[in-house]
Amino acid sequence: MPTLAEIVERFGGLLVGDGSVSISQVASLEHAGEEEISFLAGLKYRSLLAQTKAGAVIIPPAAEGSTAKPGIVADNPYLYFARLAQWLNPPRQAEAGIHPSAVVLSPIPDSVSVGALAYIGPDCEIAENVVIGPGCIVESGVSVGESTRLYGHVSIYQDCVIGARCILHSGAVIGADGFGYARERDGSWVKIPQIGRAVLGDDVEIGANTTVDRGALGDTIVERGVKLDNLIQIAHNVKVGENSAMAGCVGVAGSAEIGARVMVGGQAGISGHLKIADDTVVSARTLISKTIAKPGVVTSAMPGMPHDDWMKNVAHFRHLDLLVARLRELEKRVVDLEKEA
Amino acid sequence: MPTLAEIVERFGGLLVGDGSVSISQVASLEHAGEEEISFLAGLKYRSLLAQTKAGAVIIPPAAEGSTAKPGIVADNPYLYFARLAQWLNPPRQAEAGIHPSAVVLSPIPDSVSVGALAYIGPDCEIAENVVIGPGCIVESGVSVGESTRLYGHVSIYQDCVIGARCILHSGAVIGADGFGYARERDGSWVKIPQIGRAVLGDDVEIGANTTVDRGALGDTIVERGVKLDNLIQIAHNVKVGENSAMAGCVGVAGSAEIGARVMVGGQAGISGHLKIADDTVVSARTLISKTIAKPGVVTSAMPGMPHDDWMKNVAHFRHLDLLVARLRELEKRVVDLEKEA
Amino acid sequence: MPTLAEIVERFGGLLVGDGSVSISQVASLEHAGEEEISFLAGLKYRSLLAQTKAGAVIIPPAAEGSTAKPGIVADNPYLYFARLAQWLNPPRQAEAGIHPSAVVLSPIPDSVSVGALAYIGPDCEIAENVVIGPGCIVESGVSVGESTRLYGHVSIYQDCVIGARCILHSGAVIGADGFGYARERDGSWVKIPQIGRAVLGDDVEIGANTTVDRGALGDTIVERGVKLDNLIQIAHNVKVGENSAMAGCVGVAGSAEIGARVMVGGQAGISGHLKIADDTVVSARTLISKTIAKPGVVTSAMPGMPHDDWMKNVAHFRHLDLLVARLRELEKRVVDLEKEA
Repeated sequence: MPTLAEIVERFGGLLVGDGSVSISQVASLEHAGEEEISFLAGLKYRSLLAQTKAGAVIIPPAAEGSTAKPGIVADNPYLYFARLAQWLNPPRQAEAGIHPSAVVLSPIPDSVSVGALAYIGPDCEIAENVVIGPGCIVESGVSVGESTRLYGHVSIYQDCVIGARCILHSGAVIGADGFGYARERDGSWVKIPQIGRAVLGDDVEIGANTTVDRGALGDTIVERGVKLDNLIQIAHNVKVGENSAMAGCVGVAGSAEIGARVMVGGQAGISGHLKIADDTVVSARTLISKTIAKPGVVTSAMPGMPHDDWMKNVAHFRHLDLLVARLRELEKRVVDLEKEA
Repeated sequence: MPTLAEIVERFGGLLVGDGSVSISQVASLEHAGEEEISFLAGLKYRSLLAQTKAGAVIIPPAAEGSTAKPGIVADNPYLYFARLAQWLNPPRQAEAGIHPSAVVLSPIPDSVSVGALAYIGPDCEIAENVVIGPGCIVESGVSVGESTRLYGHVSIYQDCVIGARCILHSGAVIGADGFGYARERDGSWVKIPQIGRAVLGDDVEIGANTTVDRGALGDTIVERGVKLDNLIQIAHNVKVGENSAMAGCVGVAGSAEIGARVMVGGQAGISGHLKIADDTVVSARTLISKTIAKPGVVTSAMPGMPHDDWMKNVAHFRHLDLLVARLRELEKRVVDLEKEA
Repeated sequence: MPTLAEIVERFGGLLVGDGSVSISQVASLEHAGEEEISFLAGLKYRSLLAQTKAGAVIIPPAAEGSTAKPGIVADNPYLYFARLAQWLNPPRQAEAGIHPSAVVLSPIPDSVSVGALAYIGPDCEIAENVVIGPGCIVESGVSVGESTRLYGHVSIYQDCVIGARCILHSGAVIGADGFGYARERDGSWVKIPQIGRAVLGDDVEIGANTTVDRGALGDTIVERGVKLDNLIQIAHNVKVGENSAMAGCVGVAGSAEIGARVMVGGQAGISGHLKIADDTVVSARTLISKTIAKPGVVTSAMPGMPHDDWMKNVAHFRHLDLLVARLRELEKRVVDLEKEA
């Protein structure tokens, strides 16, 4: 169990109070106990400081002096907390080696862990320290960078590329066919073979049951540092720029080009064949149907209201055209009256 | 094949007509045959009663006398039908025992069935009569309550807790990491280890490809009796209160607290860090972005209309501010005119 | 490597220029090289023709003469391209036979390929040339038509029917229980056994992590030629008519009847117990909550706008009722003024 002083020595920041306090774990202000360290993310939570039972607290410079507890002053307490939490909670070690129930048709470094009942096809390149979870399916020709971890039940289609230090959660499907068909006169569909790949950069995290399709002709690209939450659809030939992040249930249509550091809220939708500028913020539930050329916050999420109010407003919305016509007519008549007056 | 009289003896209700009719199965009024029993859910479907070929019908007291068929009068015909349907269609028995192709690293009671190619990690507690379907991945330290059934391809991450008599459908992922990162100045993300668990109460049903993330610090909680449809995302540290139900494709953001008996329609979205009162009804497609303190029906689902009408209305919507300004201006001018008159 | 002349011989169209050019692959106008053939889908992309390095181009009659390159004139260049692309990129052959790690409890024709760690239950009917990918779970009593391909990690529940020449992508779940419960007085739910099946016609493609539930009493039907993208939810007793297509993240509620050749954009939602006419087009993000009796384009997708503008407009939207009342009041007062004038 490290002491507060040891933590400051390792991660920096300003030690306040008793540095000999032992810290076993991170916790929230509400639930922390005596051997736990918590953090104050913003001043609006300052009231929790008085009540917390945490043994120590990470606080921003602006909050210095607002608690008698031992602690660490750091410019960005949440970031400090993240790094400390990682150190106190290293990822579970997976035993190196190939489980006897796995089926592995490519050469695998000794440092790699292949879980029970996993399948790795021929011609794959699996780098050092990769962890392939139980029941994963890695098809032929896939490349996986060093220290990447696939949890159980991940599927990677043939020839896809996964960078280093990625995390892929269960049920993620990388490289399934994009949705591309030409239409016959009778309305039936002729499949366009999807001959591109899905290519994930380093340090990408892919949530549970998220799907990243392979490209139709070129590749689908998810650049380094991108974080995708659960149940997201990334269609063929999309490009997601580095360090962009998307919350759950987002859908991105084909060939959209999303810039770097773009943040996309849950259930948002992005149409195909458009561009989104670096650093754009797309609010939850918002639909982007045109290119966003300049960064900013873009929104179209309609918040819930009492059902009867909603129905009334929608009824008016359906007749906005009429409403505008009535207003225009009235304006004319008032002009006439004003002339007469 | 039970007779109508035997059914009434077992499930109650008032027998009407010939109790010796044999009943092999439940069916809809439209498709029932002579050995099948159907039900009248509401009086508006009464016209179907005249046409049905069902051998017997479950009807509400208000419909008594509206058919010459043998039947059962019950206060809630749909509920009666549900119980009877369960009795006539018991879940398929899974053979107790561990399939030789499964990999099981925890002790398992004799009554448990572990399907082909399933994986159960070490330190799990699997209760009596549990069914683990083929290809399931149950990581270390997971606890599964008695008589719970996992269909094929379910994933449960380490240390999660599943109650008794739960049903988890294929592709469900319980306990993947929540979506939590601190941001570096350069826009890159530092992962917050997700050290909580996902905890499901008794009698929970989880639909296909639905995801319930583990908590960041505390746990994600799905209380007893909750029913989740397919492709739902439950983020970290959410609490879903008992007997709440959500239809398909709903997304719930982190730390939302959903009360008991809340009903959520398909594709609805619930923002994070808010509360929803017991017994609230969230309409399909509706976004809840603020706390709902009192129960009621909440809606924000915009229904489709002919494309050209929609485009016109959206154009006006974009300029509602201008419209209101014009109205205000007009009001002033009319006041002036009235003064002069 | 076929020549242009050989391609025209096989697929028709009018050969323009040097028929001896060899073609190794299809590519986009932007990225094609000398041995690749591209296509001009519409005249608006004509400027790309001047720049392309493609060895040959498929063009529509209206574009004849707009390039000096060798090429093929075809009525529908995209359709021509699709057929040619299929010929140049045949699906990967899967080795016939059962992988020794698979668990197969039904008789399988010699022409069938069963991948590593797949499970096929008893009483299944698997037709000639079917490919069952690694890690698939096919429960008892399932029927799969000839030449259908299941990629890895597909789940098919008992007794479901899959047509011929279908493609099912990883994580697809066919035949999980529909979402049906009767409610007890105390708010708890009694499950309605889902005794119908999911039935897919010939030539259906199902995207990654898409779910098609089994019927409650009757069957859920996906007719021949239907194409479903990723992460789509098809609820119990839905019928999707032939050659309809749905983009990603669509949700269809129970018992909806969707006609033939209907096209549904991404993230659209379709309520239950309604009908959609043949050839209807549902725009992306649009909610269909009532029967669509006549084909046409139906829309309710609200496009994103700068956040502050949106908030203002939503505020007005919330008070549309008041706005209309103010307008009505003003109309009355102007009438009064006009009388006086």
